[in-house]
Amino acid sequence: MSNKIRAAIVGYGNIGKSVMEALLSAPDFELAGIVRRSVANQPKELEGITIVDDIQKLENVQVAILCTPSRSVPQMAKEVLSLGINTVDSYDIHSSIYELTEDLEPIAQKNNAVSIVSAGWDPGSDSVIRALFEAIAPKGITYTNFGPGMSMGHTVAVKSIEGVKEALSMTIPLGTGIHRRMVYVEIENGYDFNEIANKIKADPYFVHDETHVNLVDSVDDLKDMGHGVNLLRKGVSGTTQNQRFEFNMQINNPALTAQILVACARASMKQKAGCYTMIEIPPIDFLFGDRKQLIKKLV
Amino acid sequence: MSNKIRAAIVGYGNIGKSVMEALLSAPDFELAGIVRRSVANQPKELEGITIVDDIQKLENVQVAILCTPSRSVPQMAKEVLSLGINTVDSYDIHSSIYELTEDLEPIAQKNNAVSIVSAGWDPGSDSVIRALFEAIAPKGITYTNFGPGMSMGHTVAVKSIEGVKEALSMTIPLGTGIHRRMVYVEIENGYDFNEIANKIKADPYFVHDETHVNLVDSVDDLKDMGHGVNLLRKGVSGTTQNQRFEFNMQINNPALTAQILVACARASMKQKAGCYTMIEIPPIDFLFGDRKQLIKKLV
Repeated sequence: MSNKIRAAIVGYGNIGKSVMEALLSAPDFELAGIVRRSVANQPKELEGITIVDDIQKLENVQVAILCTPSRSVPQMAKEVLSLGINTVDSYDIHSSIYELTEDLEPIAQKNNAVSIVSAGWDPGSDSVIRALFEAIAPKGITYTNFGPGMSMGHTVAVKSIEGVKEALSMTIPLGTGIHRRMVYVEIENGYDFNEIANKIKADPYFVHDETHVNLVDSVDDLKDMGHGVNLLRKGVSGTTQNQRFEFNMQINNPALTAQILVACARASMKQKAGCYTMIEIPPIDFLFGDRKQLIKKLV
Repeated sequence: MSNKIRAAIVGYGNIGKSVMEALLSAPDFELAGIVRRSVANQPKELEGITIVDDIQKLENVQVAILCTPSRSVPQMAKEVLSLGINTVDSYDIHSSIYELTEDLEPIAQKNNAVSIVSAGWDPGSDSVIRALFEAIAPKGITYTNFGPGMSMGHTVAVKSIEGVKEALSMTIPLGTGIHRRMVYVEIENGYDFNEIANKIKADPYFVHDETHVNLVDSVDDLKDMGHGVNLLRKGVSGTTQNQRFEFNMQINNPALTAQILVACARASMKQKAGCYTMIEIPPIDFLFGDRKQLIKKLV
């Protein structure tokens, strides 16, 4: 009997695939299996992996890594927590994260399970950086500058406009949290590009930002999973002004999200029953290794 | 009766003074008093502040912020914890931090108190960043590049050399964790500058680094409490290479250290009895404010 953490992956898109890579690379995890809607016709890389359509068909799952779209996370998390299985997710609807923790808290408590929500990079590791910045310079402004990189939310908004065949919305940072939207579309025959461009610019996702819409032959040729962020804070420590802090990263988006989900799956094993965001977790709990070794290496 | 956290400052040098500023700026703290060796002839800014030579002479102290040199921290922390008072310190001897936590843990437990050690910027907030970097890209190398800024340890080492009247050692980052030492000295009459320069370069603090020694008329004219750090990690998330992370700051050194001590004093009120480093504390506990408001703002 292994004492590795038995994890299930729920959903197998870009994130689910990267989570599998991260789990298989982690020394302390064991993949219990993958939950998918359909168990037939699996891609080649899943050969030898247990695929089921219901998490209850997997044995001894300790933590479920939810890799489904954000909108389905709340219901899914409730169902899995009710089985006494920990959950982690990268729920990214900023305005309702707090409410999600309130919803999941009693279910986690009742079933003696742990849920860590919004475990991605923003919300997620960026949130930890923002909390640290605020702790060490309590007065001041933090700017979060995203990109360059693909915005899933904006891309989906463009795709939902009639006449759009394929779309990609890139987020370009202009500083002080202001972003340009570079939109690339293929359109259906019989539709007018200018009309579609105007509809995009009038969409609530775009109306407040500088937006450029470009007609292209192949959106797919432009797609790249790279992304980045620049977090800037100028603030006050005590009564001392002009303290400067900056965090930058340039990363493969699904790979980073997946790694953070795995780090949080590990951390979920070390918390008391309840629902947490990443800023409520001691950073050491994200890491593999013993306390002595980690303190000697990192502190 | 106030429900503010009652904090004492132990030691009143650069850090102690900045801690007083940070405490008086914090909405949730109340200064119980300052502990100094001598209670006579206080500087003007301490008018109206309770000054004592023994922490037991202060009333209802909940947490003591130790602002004495690192070498006196272990003994001081033990004495204060034995009174059932929480302690925070910025103990910075990296090689013995783990051992310090082991020494203080049973004393903290026995007296139902909390100790947070090495609560500065390095060790301290940099440690939190290093832990986060490692969590989100477990394979790879992190480089910590300090400066430009004054190194206390190196400056003290130069001052201890016979014939040196005043000294300042600046740390200059050359990348990949390699540093140049720019040393400025005033020397006593009758001593040879070249001999002193050679002794400095042969000192264990300097022998492995590129070191330049300069004779100056006034070291004091060169002193500036600014400092900085650049933390760089290139690593692997899952199986995805070339993930890039960077943290930069340019700060007033005592002001930042003091603010971090105050954040940790606050966090000490929320932990179970025991001894902690900053990577073992949930970042939200460093912050003033309620959970809902903090999650909505930062996550």
